[in-house]
Amino acid sequence: MRKVYLSLSTVAEAQKKIVSFPSPLTAEKVPLAQSLGRTLAAAAVAKVSSPAFNGAAMDGVAVKAEITYGARASKPLTLEIGREAFWVNTGAPLPPETNAVIMVENLVINQDIDPPTGAPNVTIEEAVFPWRNVRKIGEDLVETEIVLPQGTAIGAYEIGALAAAGILEPMVFRKPQVVFIPTGSEMASLDSLTPEDLKAGHKLPEFNSLIVQALVEEVGGRLTVWPIVPDDPGKLKETLLKAVDGPFDLIVFNAGSSAGSKDYTAGLLQENGELLVHGIKAMPGKPVAIGKVNQKPVLGLPGYPVSAVIAFELLGLPLLKNWQSAVPLERPNAQVRLFQDLPSKPGLSEFIRVKLGRVNGELVAAPLPRGAGTVASLAKADGIIEIPAISEGLSASQPATVSLLRPLKTINGAILAIGSHDNALALIDGLLRRRDPKLSLTSAHVGSLGGLLALGKGLTHIAGCHLLGEDGTYNQEAIRRFLPGRGVTLIRLVERSQGLMVLRGNPLKIVSLADLTRPEVTMVNRQKGSGTRALLDYELRKSGLDPQSVRGYEDEEFTHLNVAAAVAGGRAQVGLGVLAAAMALGLEFIPLGWEEYDLAILKRDLNDPKIQVLLEIIRGPEFQKEAGALGGYGFKRTGAEVFSLD
Amino acid sequence: MRKVYLSLSTVAEAQKKIVSFPSPLTAEKVPLAQSLGRTLAAAAVAKVSSPAFNGAAMDGVAVKAEITYGARASKPLTLEIGREAFWVNTGAPLPPETNAVIMVENLVINQDIDPPTGAPNVTIEEAVFPWRNVRKIGEDLVETEIVLPQGTAIGAYEIGALAAAGILEPMVFRKPQVVFIPTGSEMASLDSLTPEDLKAGHKLPEFNSLIVQALVEEVGGRLTVWPIVPDDPGKLKETLLKAVDGPFDLIVFNAGSSAGSKDYTAGLLQENGELLVHGIKAMPGKPVAIGKVNQKPVLGLPGYPVSAVIAFELLGLPLLKNWQSAVPLERPNAQVRLFQDLPSKPGLSEFIRVKLGRVNGELVAAPLPRGAGTVASLAKADGIIEIPAISEGLSASQPATVSLLRPLKTINGAILAIGSHDNALALIDGLLRRRDPKLSLTSAHVGSLGGLLALGKGLTHIAGCHLLGEDGTYNQEAIRRFLPGRGVTLIRLVERSQGLMVLRGNPLKIVSLADLTRPEVTMVNRQKGSGTRALLDYELRKSGLDPQSVRGYEDEEFTHLNVAAAVAGGRAQVGLGVLAAAMALGLEFIPLGWEEYDLAILKRDLNDPKIQVLLEIIRGPEFQKEAGALGGYGFKRTGAEVFSLD
Repeated sequence: MRKVYLSLSTVAEAQKKIVSFPSPLTAEKVPLAQSLGRTLAAAAVAKVSSPAFNGAAMDGVAVKAEITYGARASKPLTLEIGREAFWVNTGAPLPPETNAVIMVENLVINQDIDPPTGAPNVTIEEAVFPWRNVRKIGEDLVETEIVLPQGTAIGAYEIGALAAAGILEPMVFRKPQVVFIPTGSEMASLDSLTPEDLKAGHKLPEFNSLIVQALVEEVGGRLTVWPIVPDDPGKLKETLLKAVDGPFDLIVFNAGSSAGSKDYTAGLLQENGELLVHGIKAMPGKPVAIGKVNQKPVLGLPGYPVSAVIAFELLGLPLLKNWQSAVPLERPNAQVRLFQDLPSKPGLSEFIRVKLGRVNGELVAAPLPRGAGTVASLAKADGIIEIPAISEGLSASQPATVSLLRPLKTINGAILAIGSHDNALALIDGLLRRRDPKLSLTSAHVGSLGGLLALGKGLTHIAGCHLLGEDGTYNQEAIRRFLPGRGVTLIRLVERSQGLMVLRGNPLKIVSLADLTRPEVTMVNRQKGSGTRALLDYELRKSGLDPQSVRGYEDEEFTHLNVAAAVAGGRAQVGLGVLAAAMALGLEFIPLGWEEYDLAILKRDLNDPKIQVLLEIIRGPEFQKEAGALGGYGFKRTGAEVFSLD
Repeated sequence: MRKVYLSLSTVAEAQKKIVSFPSPLTAEKVPLAQSLGRTLAAAAVAKVSSPAFNGAAMDGVAVKAEITYGARASKPLTLEIGREAFWVNTGAPLPPETNAVIMVENLVINQDIDPPTGAPNVTIEEAVFPWRNVRKIGEDLVETEIVLPQGTAIGAYEIGALAAAGILEPMVFRKPQVVFIPTGSEMASLDSLTPEDLKAGHKLPEFNSLIVQALVEEVGGRLTVWPIVPDDPGKLKETLLKAVDGPFDLIVFNAGSSAGSKDYTAGLLQENGELLVHGIKAMPGKPVAIGKVNQKPVLGLPGYPVSAVIAFELLGLPLLKNWQSAVPLERPNAQVRLFQDLPSKPGLSEFIRVKLGRVNGELVAAPLPRGAGTVASLAKADGIIEIPAISEGLSASQPATVSLLRPLKTINGAILAIGSHDNALALIDGLLRRRDPKLSLTSAHVGSLGGLLALGKGLTHIAGCHLLGEDGTYNQEAIRRFLPGRGVTLIRLVERSQGLMVLRGNPLKIVSLADLTRPEVTMVNRQKGSGTRALLDYELRKSGLDPQSVRGYEDEEFTHLNVAAAVAGGRAQVGLGVLAAAMALGLEFIPLGWEEYDLAILKRDLNDPKIQVLLEIIRGPEFQKEAGALGGYGFKRTGAEVFSLD
C-alpha cells in the first residue's frame, strides 16, 4: 500500500531525464496576425529586403546628386520640377536616375505659390552628395538574411521584423498539447463546491488544473483538463492508457504521487511503462513521479498546490520550452538581506517565498509561510529564495540570492511594513496603488516587537505596533528601551477596540478575562512580542490571573484574523483580538478597551517621497472612511506624530 | 500644407497629458479559467479561509492530543482505531474532537495485518502535542482577507490564490478597446502586396497595425484594425468622427503625423476637437500627435515602424495600463560598457537599439542601425539605451544604462562577435541554439579591423576577420601590429571566394578590376578597415589602378549582403564581396580568388565553456554541411588554430 521513495533524484537529474524526451512538435504556418506568443520552428529568412527599394528619408526633392555640384549661396542653382527635381515624401521610392534628396527646409521656393509643390521649379544654394537623405535598399534587412533564429518567441517586435522581411506566414511549432488528470476520491471540481462544502472539508477543491493551465498557456501550450478520477486502480490504469493513446504530448497526473495511502501514480507508471523518477530533492515539490508510457512522458504532480506548481515549473515547463527550442524561463536574480535566519533540512533544495522591499538602498527579504498548501503565498510573494540541498539554511548575516517574481522597479516602489498585523494596512496598500500604480505597501507579520527590532536594524520602512508599556503608554517604552539613538517617530494610525472574540451567541457565556480560567474554556493566544499578547499579559496580571491556569495559552497564532479563524473553526472557544477581525469572521465581540496602533518610522525616512504619500493617505478622508467601514477603529489622533525619540 | 511643430512636448509632459484621460473601463466578472492576463478591477476578498478546516498535514492517525500524554517507549499506549485514533491522509479534515496527527512512521502496527489500516488498534511510544501535524484553518488565507489588490495582473499564481480564496469569478476590468486606423494613399495592406510590389515601392506595406496589435494584446487590450484611409481630408474627418462615435476607448491614427506633405492628423484633431500634443522630444518617435475628440483620446502615430512602436510604448501603453490601475511595463536596467561613443542631437531623447554580450564579466553594448525604419533592429536588439534630451551623446569611457529587452541570463549565454560580417555566423548561432537553447551568437558588424581593436579592448568574445597583409598572409600582420601582448589565437572559420558581383547577365561585361575605372561603371565599396576593402585596395595597387578613377569608391556599405543589395537594387553596377552574398541576391559572380576568414579569440577565453562549444560546432560536420550549401566556402583548415601570438 505504502510507496517508499527508493531514491530521490536531484532536481538537475530529474530535469535531465524529462527533457531527454524528443520533441513531438511538428511545424505549421500561421498568419502573422495570429502568431503572437508562438515560437519559430525554423530560422526566418527574409523574402524581401527592407526597404526593398531606395527611398526618401526626408520630405523634399529627389535629384541626381551630380547635377547639384557647384551650387552654393553665391551661385544658386534652379532645378526644374518634373525634369531635374521630383517632390518626394518620406518613405517614397526615389524616381529613376535620382540618388539623393534635398530637404524641403533647404529649398528656396517662390512664396507666392501655394501649395509650393505647384511651383515649376526650386532653387538650391548648396550641393548634395549621392545617397544623402536616402534610405538605401536593405538598410534594415537584406533578402535571404536570417532575420530571427529558430526558437524565437514571437512578440510585438518579432512581428514587425517578420512583416518587414515579407514573411506573412511564419513557420511555428504547433502548440504542445498537455492533458491534466486530477485524481483522488476526496477531490471535487472547484465550481461544484459551495463555501459550506469547502468549510466542511468532505470534498477538497481541485484547482491545481487552473494553475497548471495558466502555466502551460504562458509557454504557448494548450491544456485539456479531464474529469477527476477516483482512487480506483482500474479506473486510473484505464485513464492512463487512454491518455497516452490520445493526441497529447505530455500527460500530467495530479495528486496521488505523495507518499500517502492513496499514492498510485508511481505504481501505475511502473506497471504500465517505465518509472524514471520517483521523488525529487526539493521542498515543496518532492513527491513527484516521472514515467514513460507508450514513449510519452507522464508527470505525476504532488497534490499540494505549491508543491504542484514548483514541481511543474521545475520539470514540466523546461520540457515544453525545450520542445520549442526555446530558452527555459529563468527569472532575474537579485542580492538581498534576509530579515531572519532561514534554517532548512539538508538534502532537499528548499524554495522559500519572500516579500521584498528596498529599505535605505538595500533589498530586504521577509519570508512568507513555508507550507506546501499556502498557495496564496505564491501570489503574495515578490521573490523565491532557493536554499541549496547541501545547506542547513541561510544566515541573516550573509547576503542571499532571490529569484524575482516582480520587476525590481515595482519592488522599489513598495513600502515594506514589518510588524504587527492590521487590516488597515491592506486598505493603505489599495489607496497607495490608486494614487500611483507604482506605489504599494507590502507587509510581513511578526508582531509589534519584531517590527520595532527590524526597524532598529534598518530592515523595514515602517513597523506597525501596539505595545502596552508598564507606564500605560503604547510603544514609547519599547522604543526607549530597544531603539535609543535610532531617531524614531511614532505616527498614530488608529485606535483599536480590543476584546474577546467568541462564537455568535456566546455559547460558553464568556464575559471577562476571568472566564479564560474555566476548565471547559480553551483560548487561542497570540505570539510573544505581539501587542495583543502584551495586552493580555498586562490585563491578566492586573486581574491577578495566572496564565498557567488558562488552557490554550501556549497555542499561538500570528494575526488577528488567524485567531478569529481558530475560534470560528472551533479550535478554541475564545481569543483576544480587534473588532474588525471578529466582524470579518462573524464572531461576537466582548470589548475590553481601546488600544493605540502606531506606525514607527525612522526620522531619516520621513522625507522619502513614498513615506510622504503614505502620511498624506493616512491623514486623508478616504482612509478614515474605508477603515471606519471595517468597524472597531477610532481616529482621534490618526496621522498625528504622537512620540519622537532621537 | 506643411505642419510646423509649434512646440515639442517632453516625453513626460506628453505622458502626463495622455494618462489624464479618465478610465472608461467598467468591471466585469469572468470565470477563473478565463481570467489569465486580465487585471483585477477591485481588491479580491477571500470568500473562504484556506484551508477552510483543520486538516491533516501528514498521513497517520488523528487523535485528541491530551489522551496521549504520558506515552513513552517504556510505557507504550495502544489506541483503538475508530474510537481513539482515526486514519487520515494528508489534506483530510480532522475528525471531530481530534486536534493532532501522529505520523504513520511513528506508529507501531501489527505487521501481520495488511493493509495496516485494517488493524483494530495502533500503539504509540511518544505523546503528541495539540495541533501537531495539523494544517490549521486559515493558515494560507483567512475569510474576508484582501488576497490581491486592485490592479493585479492575473497570472498562474494569482489564479491559485483566487481559487484558494473561493473566488470563482474574479471582477476584472473589461478589455480596453483600441481602433487602429492606417492612413496614406501610398499604403496597402501587407498581405495584398507581392514581393515584386514591395520591390517596386509604388505601394508601401502597412504592418504597423500588426505590431501595435501585439503590444495592445500584451497589456490585455483588444485592437480593431480599420481599412487604410487615403489622404483625403474629407474621408479622414469622416473616419475620425465615426471612430470617436464607436465602441472604442482609444483611437490610433497611423502615419500622417510626420511633418511630411501629407500630414493631416494634427490638423484633423485641431479642427474636430483639441490638439493636446504635437511632437515629442524623442527620436525615434518625434512626429506624434495627441488630441481629444468627443472626450476620447486620439493618438496620431508616426509612419516609420520604429517611431510608431516607440511612440506607442511611450504614450499608448501607459494609458492602457493606467486605466487598468496597473503599473506601466518597465524593463529592467543594467549597466553596460559602450563599444563606441554614441553622439546624439541635444534636445531630443534618443533611443538606441543595442546588442549585448557579457565579455569577461562585463556587459558590452554594440549599437545597431539607428534609422526609424529599421524595424528588424528592434527584434535583433537585446536592449535599448536612452540618451537623455539634455545630452550631446554618451562617451564610451563612461558606463551607460541599458533597458533590457531580454533576460540577463539569456544575454549571459550569448557569444558576442564584433567584426567582419559573414553569413556563416548566423548558421553558428542556429547550431549553438540547437545544441543548448541557452547559448547563442550575437554579432555586430564593424569590419575586420574594428573587430580586432574591440578584441584588444576586451569588448568582444570573438572577432571575425579577413585582413590581407602586405606579406600576403591574412590577419596575422594586423594582430602583430595592433594586439601585441594580448594573447590572441586565430581559428580558421572558412576560406571564402571573393569576387565581383554584377547583375545577372553582366550587362556591362565586367570581367576584372580594370573595368571599375570605366566611366559608365559605378561601384559600391565596403567601409575602411573591412577585409574586403583591404583586398580591393591590395588588388588595385597590384594592378596599378588609381582608386580616384573608380566611381562610387567613396560609397560605403557595411556588409556583403548590403553591397549585393545595392547592386541588385541598381544603386551600383558592381561590388566586391563573397559568393554567398551574390548567390543570396541572385547576382552573377566573377571570382577574384580565395581569402581566409578567421575568428580571433583571446587565449584567456579559449577555456570558456561557451567558446568550447563554439569550437566543437565549427569543427563538426553540421557546420560544413550547412555552410557548404550557401556556396563559395572552402573548409581546408576550418577549425584549425592557424596563428597564435602571446
